[in-house]
Amino acid sequence: MGKVVAALSMSLDGFVADENDGVAELFGWYQNGEVEVPSADPRWVFHVTEASARFLKHSLAGAGALICGRRLFDRTDGWGGRHPAGCPVFVVSHSVPGGWPRDDSETSFHPDAIGALEAAQKVAGDRTVSVSTPTLTHQYLDAGLLDELVVSLVPVLLGTGISFFGAQEVTPIRLDDPEVIEGRGVTHLTFRVLR
Amino acid sequence: MGKVVAALSMSLDGFVADENDGVAELFGWYQNGEVEVPSADPRWVFHVTEASARFLKHSLAGAGALICGRRLFDRTDGWGGRHPAGCPVFVVSHSVPGGWPRDDSETSFHPDAIGALEAAQKVAGDRTVSVSTPTLTHQYLDAGLLDELVVSLVPVLLGTGISFFGAQEVTPIRLDDPEVIEGRGVTHLTFRVLR
Repeated sequence: MGKVVAALSMSLDGFVADENDGVAELFGWYQNGEVEVPSADPRWVFHVTEASARFLKHSLAGAGALICGRRLFDRTDGWGGRHPAGCPVFVVSHSVPGGWPRDDSETSFHPDAIGALEAAQKVAGDRTVSVSTPTLTHQYLDAGLLDELVVSLVPVLLGTGISFFGAQEVTPIRLDDPEVIEGRGVTHLTFRVLR
Repeated sequence: MGKVVAALSMSLDGFVADENDGVAELFGWYQNGEVEVPSADPRWVFHVTEASARFLKHSLAGAGALICGRRLFDRTDGWGGRHPAGCPVFVVSHSVPGGWPRDDSETSFHPDAIGALEAAQKVAGDRTVSVSTPTLTHQYLDAGLLDELVVSLVPVLLGTGISFFGAQEVTPIRLDDPEVIEGRGVTHLTFRVLR
């Protein structure tokens, strides 16, 4: 089975978005370089440094499924039905939003986090299941189901916002030393979760 | 004048100590390698990896003064009168503890943070003033007086504890991309504060 990976851009003080879900301070590295990296959605083309391109192409190519919470789904309008990673999307939500599911989108809705992960892993096969929401990351960490934390560390202190970590119940959680890729406006750190 | 630097070991979720001021999970890298690094206090000898030795020797050699809060001073019993970095210590405290100041110790007490920094900089000259307490770090960040943040990032999630960041009032604070030194059980990240 593929790896289960939580991957987010995070400020040095631990935030993945500001208080209004804004990510302008954190996503600058997606557009500050000379290497064009296409996504599955023609509206989204990244322009990153050589180093970040290596990181990003690897992430996009490896993605077999993506799990997110309802808040992120609503915020992005379900990525218009097609996530930039080009993989099926599994939304953890107590209710199915109006207009969904759609015939033209591989997006499904699941009432509980563990069920969503099982369904995502079935579809992903040997490819990576990517978790895009902090609250789900905490649940999978607590359940011992997360293999890697991928932190794209952005050199800024936001002061307030939505935290990546903080609500997992089982601590400490020990990690291996990270693989480090030094970009511009970002340092990509990939930590394996030790069990 | 020398740089003003806040340097701490921090968990990936932003804690510099656990809820009881414990640092066992964070200070392992000081004793997990083969290179002996002496300190100014013969009771403290570090054993670190080659990479961390480079980082640590540079830190110790460059230290011209150290500033801390009363809590850390009490917790360490004033480092027995001599900090491992071998430099004078400036304690920000509303009161002077019994038995202090001592003739055999370059430790002084200052009622306010900015005054302590001015006194420390005078003594340090061209050498670094090192700030060892989160609350003082926030004050110096807010006042635009901090030059660098040195985060020895430890691959662990503690869940709770004493945060490095979070109470600075002026945000966002933008930093330069870090210098990275990859140790064992730690990744040393040195960020310049942009103004």
